[in-house]
Amino acid sequence: MYLIDEKSTIPLHIQLYEAFKDDIIKNYTVGEKLPSIRKIASLYNLSKNSVQSSYNQLYAEGYIESRPKRGYFVSDIYFDGFKSPKVTDETPKAKKKSYHYDFFPAQLSKDSFPLKTWKRIYNKVIDASLDFGAYHDGQGEEGLREQIASYLIDSRGVKCSSKEIVICSSFGESMGLLAKLIKDKYITLGMESPGYHVARRAFEEYGYEIAHIPVDENGIMIEALKSSDAKVVYITPSHQYPTGVAMPIANRLSLLAYIQSVQGLIIEDDYDSELSYKNRPIPSLQGLDNGDCVVYMGTFSKALSPAIRVSYMLLPKHLLARYHDSFDAYFPSVSLMTQKTLEAFMAQGHWDKHVRKIRTLNKKKHAIMIEALKRYLGDTFEIVAQGGGLAVLINPSVAFDWEKFRQRAEEEGIKLYFAKERCGGKFEAIRMGFGGFSEAGIEEAVEAFSLVWKEALL
Amino acid sequence: MYLIDEKSTIPLHIQLYEAFKDDIIKNYTVGEKLPSIRKIASLYNLSKNSVQSSYNQLYAEGYIESRPKRGYFVSDIYFDGFKSPKVTDETPKAKKKSYHYDFFPAQLSKDSFPLKTWKRIYNKVIDASLDFGAYHDGQGEEGLREQIASYLIDSRGVKCSSKEIVICSSFGESMGLLAKLIKDKYITLGMESPGYHVARRAFEEYGYEIAHIPVDENGIMIEALKSSDAKVVYITPSHQYPTGVAMPIANRLSLLAYIQSVQGLIIEDDYDSELSYKNRPIPSLQGLDNGDCVVYMGTFSKALSPAIRVSYMLLPKHLLARYHDSFDAYFPSVSLMTQKTLEAFMAQGHWDKHVRKIRTLNKKKHAIMIEALKRYLGDTFEIVAQGGGLAVLINPSVAFDWEKFRQRAEEEGIKLYFAKERCGGKFEAIRMGFGGFSEAGIEEAVEAFSLVWKEALL
Repeated sequence: MYLIDEKSTIPLHIQLYEAFKDDIIKNYTVGEKLPSIRKIASLYNLSKNSVQSSYNQLYAEGYIESRPKRGYFVSDIYFDGFKSPKVTDETPKAKKKSYHYDFFPAQLSKDSFPLKTWKRIYNKVIDASLDFGAYHDGQGEEGLREQIASYLIDSRGVKCSSKEIVICSSFGESMGLLAKLIKDKYITLGMESPGYHVARRAFEEYGYEIAHIPVDENGIMIEALKSSDAKVVYITPSHQYPTGVAMPIANRLSLLAYIQSVQGLIIEDDYDSELSYKNRPIPSLQGLDNGDCVVYMGTFSKALSPAIRVSYMLLPKHLLARYHDSFDAYFPSVSLMTQKTLEAFMAQGHWDKHVRKIRTLNKKKHAIMIEALKRYLGDTFEIVAQGGGLAVLINPSVAFDWEKFRQRAEEEGIKLYFAKERCGGKFEAIRMGFGGFSEAGIEEAVEAFSLVWKEALL
Repeated sequence: MYLIDEKSTIPLHIQLYEAFKDDIIKNYTVGEKLPSIRKIASLYNLSKNSVQSSYNQLYAEGYIESRPKRGYFVSDIYFDGFKSPKVTDETPKAKKKSYHYDFFPAQLSKDSFPLKTWKRIYNKVIDASLDFGAYHDGQGEEGLREQIASYLIDSRGVKCSSKEIVICSSFGESMGLLAKLIKDKYITLGMESPGYHVARRAFEEYGYEIAHIPVDENGIMIEALKSSDAKVVYITPSHQYPTGVAMPIANRLSLLAYIQSVQGLIIEDDYDSELSYKNRPIPSLQGLDNGDCVVYMGTFSKALSPAIRVSYMLLPKHLLARYHDSFDAYFPSVSLMTQKTLEAFMAQGHWDKHVRKIRTLNKKKHAIMIEALKRYLGDTFEIVAQGGGLAVLINPSVAFDWEKFRQRAEEEGIKLYFAKERCGGKFEAIRMGFGGFSEAGIEEAVEAFSLVWKEALL
């Protein structure tokens, strides 16, 4: 009756359990009595312990129930639902289209990550002195926060200490965390228009209203903000996303004065701070604030790697208290390995060196992109934004068949990115990412791009 | 007038910029005209380019403005706000109290992480073939998802393929993501009471109502759920948090039938699945579902390491479509290094071996804890939950002075954890975590604990 293999590596009581289960499903009805443990043991020459163990398991899973002094009975369960697990249908994967030229605007070239240094440091700092059995500081490791603080003080004019820094895995996570922290106090988020969709969405998901505040050549229009309901405002003052404009100091101070007067909050996203190709990057707005009303956000995605998943946020003191009050639900989202490696990478001066290298490299690519655009597109285009980041934004300066342009680019395997797709609103520009190309690759890509472009000229 | 050091490594135009800025702040008034570029260049024997560069920077930062054909003038900016950045006060850090004995219930022992294997694999798989300049699959790397899928199929009776798996950095992140995905459809979350506070909070933060459904010796009470408004329900069926009860199969099927009938959703948190010390862990509830109404959640925190920050969630197909529709705002929250290392760790069979080792190790510690409790507390206590995880839950079985107990434990440097602190509600138990202790350490800790315990007996 039961198929038991005594030489199997599967323990006897589990073989018994499987056999009984099969038997119950196939041959028993609900409420039917099962043979006693003693009877089965003697009938099949098994130990009572093994039979008891298998019955225990059947009991735990609800197949059988025990009635005091009467024995074991088949439970009233719905056998229908209990089919053996199977992998669901393996429909062929949707093939991802591959492109000849991909102008993705948030890409660094593959060889720009300092892999050898990173691995050397990893191998040195990741050792048995670290406790991988425990949860660690939800705010991020103290040592890494110290490194970030001193970097921000030196290079971005930020006022901070490690105590105010929170390590996250992404800008989106930081924004979500912030949206949670302040949702009792604020209802409306002021967003640059056009602006960064990830910021907007993080707040929308927590039920905030969005006030779209227009951007002009000096960044967000402060008068428009004043006449809106928003007391919290998200801005990218160093290098507005996507228009690339920088907010002059007069506007920064006037925005700060306004936000302080309404007890509001400025969220300063300094995402491209390391990739400014002007004389010198403008210091942070946070550094001008004496009223504790700026949340500063930064990331390692743009200058180091989007694949290591580390960003950070600097909270003003009053929010820090709130953050700690609700702390127990937050765990660090970055692994201890990554934090420790990044900390040593910074402490040993590699980060500063790397930023200089990446800035020089991409400044050159930025120039090559502009040169190539001028050479291949002549006077049929205008530059909408330049001077920082990993893309130059352009538009046609002559009559243009957008529909044909998009279609032909797709046909020719040229992947394009448009500002409107990411930002909504009326602002449109083609985002000519250069970070992922080699220097020679930019020339080649723009040449291919120009053929499609010329077909679209009216 | 200007202090320029031609031998400095600081570029000339930056030295000029600093000198001009200083001069403007100290010696100029708003609206005053600056000397022309030509004049300064000839006066101090400098190149016009260098002077122009420094003026450009001053202009970009808003210190000066340019009036066509008239030259440069000092801007109307609020100098007050522009002080040089300083580190904020370095108040001494709040000292974290250190304890002699810490019964933290979610701790693995420090030496249980397979560090040597992990590093060996890391060094092998992390190489230049990986692209650290790019963003990667927001759902997690395909290869890691495949490993997790086949693990779940084999060991937990889960029905899935890699396509349905989403990699996250924590259970809390998974819950937040899910709360976002379904918030248009559901208003109320049914929570086990007592239950896991992190699950509740993730949904509360998105504005859900919470229906507290009591738990009895068979897990969540299905009749109570039926009479509530909740069509989404969060459960821990294998090992209820915190009571430790397992839901019998009859209840599982009846819960599934109900949730299917109301087009609801079951969130199955299988957090302690690897740490079951009974005959065999009960297969997942998800594996019984034929109606695509179970979201399955798991984590590597409990059996591998809470410091590597990897968890996963398995979405039913209808939610997967929703997830992909809103995909562009989500980036993977786990680094490419961690994902690739974990993938190879699993593919090479280390994960299976590790789980067996950790289970055996902690099953032993679990038995030692119970033994020690019996020896030192005698018949003054009762076990409330046992048989899985990293803690045994106990309560006094005799009259007890809780206040004194807590106070004396604190004085003696014994860190205790109480179920009510984490779960709210009326359920109370002392959570005797054993995972962080060595085998000998458990004995010692329980002995120290028993001295305080005895003082609290009435």
